[in-house]
Amino acid sequence: MIGITDPDLRKKLAARANGAAVGGNGYLFIFCADLYRIMAAASPEDKAKMRANLSSSFFFQTAVLSAALALQNANLAAESMGLGTVIIGAVNSALPELDEWLNLSEFVIPMAGFAVGVPDEQPEQKPRLPQSVVFFENRYDPDMKESIAQYDRDMELYYEQRTDNKQKANWSQKFIGMLTADLPLGFYTEYIRRKGFALK
Amino acid sequence: MIGITDPDLRKKLAARANGAAVGGNGYLFIFCADLYRIMAAASPEDKAKMRANLSSSFFFQTAVLSAALALQNANLAAESMGLGTVIIGAVNSALPELDEWLNLSEFVIPMAGFAVGVPDEQPEQKPRLPQSVVFFENRYDPDMKESIAQYDRDMELYYEQRTDNKQKANWSQKFIGMLTADLPLGFYTEYIRRKGFALK
Repeated sequence: MIGITDPDLRKKLAARANGAAVGGNGYLFIFCADLYRIMAAASPEDKAKMRANLSSSFFFQTAVLSAALALQNANLAAESMGLGTVIIGAVNSALPELDEWLNLSEFVIPMAGFAVGVPDEQPEQKPRLPQSVVFFENRYDPDMKESIAQYDRDMELYYEQRTDNKQKANWSQKFIGMLTADLPLGFYTEYIRRKGFALK
Repeated sequence: MIGITDPDLRKKLAARANGAAVGGNGYLFIFCADLYRIMAAASPEDKAKMRANLSSSFFFQTAVLSAALALQNANLAAESMGLGTVIIGAVNSALPELDEWLNLSEFVIPMAGFAVGVPDEQPEQKPRLPQSVVFFENRYDPDMKESIAQYDRDMELYYEQRTDNKQKANWSQKFIGMLTADLPLGFYTEYIRRKGFALK
């Protein structure tokens, strides 16, 4: 966890990772996956061997998983105190810069920004995916067209009726639109490889 | 989330993913990263384009992150009710079998087992990493040899004095020992590639 208290640093971050949550009030954390720490006590020879193992996609998964558990701990802790929170994926648009600005070591990868503050609005609860596509007993069931169609109708209603930023949209349409575009995602693999995760 | 209520399935799982938490009492979930659902409403042409994007390491990270947030929600919810929980990484040793046993679709990857039950023991709290290597202000500080050495001394004491499974060990020694071995980790990349995550 890196707490961003330097106003210049916060301004630089806000210019890259959009939105009031980064540039505005409240406290801003950057949550990182971190497999650097476990090398602190290792000899140079041990480190070389460790790097070969840590570079695997298995340890990348482990590192992301652990950082996300910590993030959700922080999130629920803040909410339990009546604070409002935002998880900010947009830090991914400034990864090489974050390395430099935050002095991040090898095997330390920013996962998400996390802003905490006193909420000044109470947005409506977004509908959740129906339980039938979230929980399964013993067997995953890929036949979920009907459940998703129902959820899309719920989301259409939500987008139409919510207080701010009303729109004509639904869940599938938004994701299918995003995911059928030509997304330039190679930057991410390049970045994590440079940080040590060769993903072998 | 897949709840395992079939006793035969649970026996098969316990034989592969070691330990009483899998084979014993309480309720067992398998938490999965799932990017299959968002394709449910897509046309075959759209699906082909979506697969190309979803196969990236960026979306693999996103899927793992989201599943882990849900896992920690479940974990803290259970603990808030006075239940005991175990997160079980050992499901990774049975990935191809889990695909078959649980009927997992493309882009659905088991992350962790999660057992919930009424605790019949109160193990001592394991010491946590010192705050100086977990939280940083504005800049990550890789100079953490002293803090880790102190933590290793705390862990030695903990391992020596705890009620069950006393041992002579510390944190660095355990991880360095594990991570300098010849770990066969290629299986993981092979598996997630087969499920659609080419990690480009």
